[in-house]
Amino acid sequence: MDITRLNPTPRWSDATLYNGIIHFVEVPADTTQAIAIQIGQLLQQAELTLAQMNSHKSRLLSATIYITDLQHFALFNQMWEAWLPEGAAPSRACIKTELVNPAMLIEIMFVAAACE
Amino acid sequence: MDITRLNPTPRWSDATLYNGIIHFVEVPADTTQAIAIQIGQLLQQAELTLAQMNSHKSRLLSATIYITDLQHFALFNQMWEAWLPEGAAPSRACIKTELVNPAMLIEIMFVAAACE
Amino acid sequence: MDITRLNPTPRWSDATLYNGIIHFVEVPADTTQAIAIQIGQLLQQAELTLAQMNSHKSRLLSATIYITDLQHFALFNQMWEAWLPEGAAPSRACIKTELVNPAMLIEIMFVAAACE
Repeated sequence: MDITRLNPTPRWSDATLYNGIIHFVEVPADTTQAIAIQIGQLLQQAELTLAQMNSHKSRLLSATIYITDLQHFALFNQMWEAWLPEGAAPSRACIKTELVNPAMLIEIMFVAAACE
Repeated sequence: MDITRLNPTPRWSDATLYNGIIHFVEVPADTTQAIAIQIGQLLQQAELTLAQMNSHKSRLLSATIYITDLQHFALFNQMWEAWLPEGAAPSRACIKTELVNPAMLIEIMFVAAACE
Repeated sequence: MDITRLNPTPRWSDATLYNGIIHFVEVPADTTQAIAIQIGQLLQQAELTLAQMNSHKSRLLSATIYITDLQHFALFNQMWEAWLPEGAAPSRACIKTELVNPAMLIEIMFVAAACE
């Protein structure tokens, strides 16, 4: 069975699809922005990635949320809940950590199911 | 193919099942307790989640263990080995990190196969 | 459907295979070595694990890279790009964190597709 890759570069692909399962990672587009903008950009990009992979935010299976500052966590949860469709939240873990770009305040690794 | 979700809330589901694969995350039920109790609660809850998803601790594929204090790691390994059925250990990664609730000493993200 | 496990110990398996999906985690063989050696050992071992699971580095779906020192990140990216086959990069997340062995400078959790 073939693997479908979205925008493969020498370092990463924006998403991979195999056997109905999509793996993708989202970061903010502009890490000079404040946390609310970074979260909004990340969630918007996740929707675009899902659309390009024939999926949707109602099909998320798992999310690993890496957040760099616990003072941002309440806002993140508020925006996350507003973003998710009703009844469709994935399994999720939340880790307080550093990221490889110190200006990047949040990163999320997703697993999703393709639409069929 | 439908996604089955266990106890979906606006923020997360306790587990998701798609195409025979279960994603779930466990944390201690009572983070005021000492590490041994927190580990025991987490592993017990994992068994309950697996049972509710038609699976079992002999069907684990992957575990990502987030531990906040390396002084707890030897005890964790001892309880982990006692808990796992013989010959059925998953792939695992162990990370020393902070969690979003400072009183929570451990969190584990699991991937498991449903029973068939 | 059965789960195939590579070298199961009481604590972990080197890899698991279920429904065409392989989960495995790699660490350096010798954590007394400098970062370049540790990265090289890890990537070489990943190839061996993939071969033993009937897969190949061209079949990676996801990589979660845990790195302990950002000063090693440029070197890691250089070795990572040289190692990956053209057009076959997985989805990836990079986290700056501590690991459970302080001498271990890098750890990677992979998801791959079996060859068919």
